[in-house]
Amino acid sequence: MSDSEFQLIQAYFSEPEHTIRSDVILGIGDDCAIVSPRKQSDLVFSIDTLISGVHFPHNTPADAIAYKALAVNLSDLAAMGAEPAWFTLSLTLPASASQKQWLAEFSQALFRLAKQHNIKLIGGDTTHGPLSITIQVCGYVEHKTALRRSGAVVGDIIAVTGSLGAAAIGLDIALQQHHENYFCLSAAVKQSALNALNYPQARIAEGLKLNNIAHSALDLSDGLISDLGHILNASEVAAEIQLECLPLSAALSCMDKEQAWEKALTGGDDYELCFTLAKENWPEVVRQYPEFTAIGTIVAPQADQNQLLLLKENGRQHIIHSRGYDHFA
Amino acid sequence: MSDSEFQLIQAYFSEPEHTIRSDVILGIGDDCAIVSPRKQSDLVFSIDTLISGVHFPHNTPADAIAYKALAVNLSDLAAMGAEPAWFTLSLTLPASASQKQWLAEFSQALFRLAKQHNIKLIGGDTTHGPLSITIQVCGYVEHKTALRRSGAVVGDIIAVTGSLGAAAIGLDIALQQHHENYFCLSAAVKQSALNALNYPQARIAEGLKLNNIAHSALDLSDGLISDLGHILNASEVAAEIQLECLPLSAALSCMDKEQAWEKALTGGDDYELCFTLAKENWPEVVRQYPEFTAIGTIVAPQADQNQLLLLKENGRQHIIHSRGYDHFA
Repeated sequence: MSDSEFQLIQAYFSEPEHTIRSDVILGIGDDCAIVSPRKQSDLVFSIDTLISGVHFPHNTPADAIAYKALAVNLSDLAAMGAEPAWFTLSLTLPASASQKQWLAEFSQALFRLAKQHNIKLIGGDTTHGPLSITIQVCGYVEHKTALRRSGAVVGDIIAVTGSLGAAAIGLDIALQQHHENYFCLSAAVKQSALNALNYPQARIAEGLKLNNIAHSALDLSDGLISDLGHILNASEVAAEIQLECLPLSAALSCMDKEQAWEKALTGGDDYELCFTLAKENWPEVVRQYPEFTAIGTIVAPQADQNQLLLLKENGRQHIIHSRGYDHFA
Repeated sequence: MSDSEFQLIQAYFSEPEHTIRSDVILGIGDDCAIVSPRKQSDLVFSIDTLISGVHFPHNTPADAIAYKALAVNLSDLAAMGAEPAWFTLSLTLPASASQKQWLAEFSQALFRLAKQHNIKLIGGDTTHGPLSITIQVCGYVEHKTALRRSGAVVGDIIAVTGSLGAAAIGLDIALQQHHENYFCLSAAVKQSALNALNYPQARIAEGLKLNNIAHSALDLSDGLISDLGHILNASEVAAEIQLECLPLSAALSCMDKEQAWEKALTGGDDYELCFTLAKENWPEVVRQYPEFTAIGTIVAPQADQNQLLLLKENGRQHIIHSRGYDHFA
C-alpha cells in the first residue's frame, strides 16, 4: 500500500462507525481484516466487478455506481437466503481532477447502503486505471439451508419478487436510445425506470424469508429467460411460463403486449429474485408478500432438451430455446 | 452471468479436483459459494487487484500474471500468520484472438499455486475490459492470534525473511531499463531477478511459524522503508536499521554499497515478511530459519515524529523520514 493509497483510504473509506458488528475484530488498515464468524452458520461468498461503459454508462453518477456495485452483490446474498455480514472493495480509479468529490459521493452512497443492510466494509484495495469496482460480499446462512439453483422439482410454482423490465427501459433512457418508444411515459415513470437501473433493491428480507420455503432461487441479472435457464439446467427440469402472468413494470406500459413481454423476459438488471417452491406453500408466501407473482410451473423436461421453457398465453404457445430468446411463434 | 461467461468458467475455472477441502460445501456455479468454516478459528480476508501496465508490464506471460495475482494475496495471509483456505477471482479480459491459450496458461498456473497452498477457488466473475485481476483470499488463524502491524514494542528485533532487492532489478530488466547497471550480472542471476518479480514466494510456512512468536509483521510489497513505516506508525514506535545487516540479493552485486542499500530499502515486490519479536526469542527463530536476518531494533520514537527510522552503518548515521527515502547523509 503506497502512502497516497493509505491516505485515500483513510480519508474516504475508514468510517469506523458506518456499521458496528461485534464479529469484526479488525477492519481496514492491516494486511488482512480479521473476523470471528458466528458458530453454527455457514458462510456464503460472491464477487462482482462493474466496469464503466460495460456495466453502467460512462455518465453514471458516483453515488449510483457505488450503490449498484454493492447492491448487485447483496442481491447474490439475497438469492442464497443469506444475511449480509462483511464486504471488501477493490476500486480502480482514473486520475481525475474531480476525484475528491467523486470519492466523497461514492463512499457516502456505499456506506449508506451498507448501513441499511448491516454489512461492514472490512478491507480494500485502490489502484489507478480505467474505472472499475470489484466487491466481494460475505454473509451468513444457517448450516445447510442456503438456497441454490439446483433444487427445483416438477410441480413447483415459479415466482418472482417485484416487477420486470423497468431497468431495461432505464438503460435505454440512460443511453438515449429508442426514444420513440418512450414518448408516452411520464417523467415520473422515466425517472423510476432510471432508478430501477441505478438503484436496484437487493431482496435481502425476501431471501431470508424464502430460505426455509423455496426449493431453488437466483437473482435476475441477465434477464428472466437466461437466468431461469440456470435453474432449469442445474435442476434438470423444464418450465412453463404464463406470459399473461408476468408482472410488467409501469415502464413497459407504452409497448404493445408482445414487446412488453419480450422486455420482461430478456431485459437485464432487474435484480428481483426468481424462485420455485411447492404449490402448497404458495398461498402462505403470497399472503405475506402480496407483491410476489407466480409466473409458471416447473415441468418434466421434454425429450428435446433444447426446449426447456414453454411460454404460454391463454393456450397459445410460444417456444423458447435454452440458448436464448428466439422469437414469438 | 451470461451464457458465454458461463462456458468460459466451465472450460477453464471449474476444475473441481485442483484442491479438495472438506469445508467447501458449494464452489463455483451458483449465486454464491458456500463454506462451513472450522469452529474456534478466526478468518482473515485480503483483496488485491493487479492491472496490466501498472502492477506488471504488458509483456508479462499469462502464467506469471496468474501466479503473481494469487501469490501477492497469499503473502497478505502469510503476514497475518494465517493458513490459506479459499479465494475468489474476478478476471477482466480484453477481447483477444489468443484468449483460449491465454486462459489455459492462466488457469493452469493459478491452480498449480492454489494446490501448493491448499487454497480453493470458490467463486468468480469474468468481464470484458482492460486486463485486470482481482483476487480475494480468506484464511484461518487461531482465535485472537493473528499477526498485526500494531504490536511492535521497544527493544524488539526487526527481521526479514529471505533477501531484498531482486524484484526491483527484475522490474528494471523486464522494462529494459538501466541496462548499463546490469552488464556484470550473469544470465542466471538476471533470470532469478525476473523470477523474483514474476513468481514471488508467499511466506506462508514462515508466517504460521511466527504467529505465536512475532509481535508484529507485514509483507514487503512497496519496499522496506515504506512498509516498515506502517509497523512504526501503527505501533507508535521508531526503528534503527543497521544497513550493513540488510540481506542483499545477488542481483544487487553489481552495484556499489550505497546503491545496493537504496534498492534494498526502496525496491518493491519482494514479498518477504518483515517482523519484530522479543530479543530473547530471536536465537530460537534463527536456528530454525537460518535464512531470516535481523536488520535492526525497535526504539522509542524521537521528539521529532518525522524521524521514525534511523539508518546506521558502523556508527555513521543516515537519516530517513517517514514519508519516504530522502537521501544518504
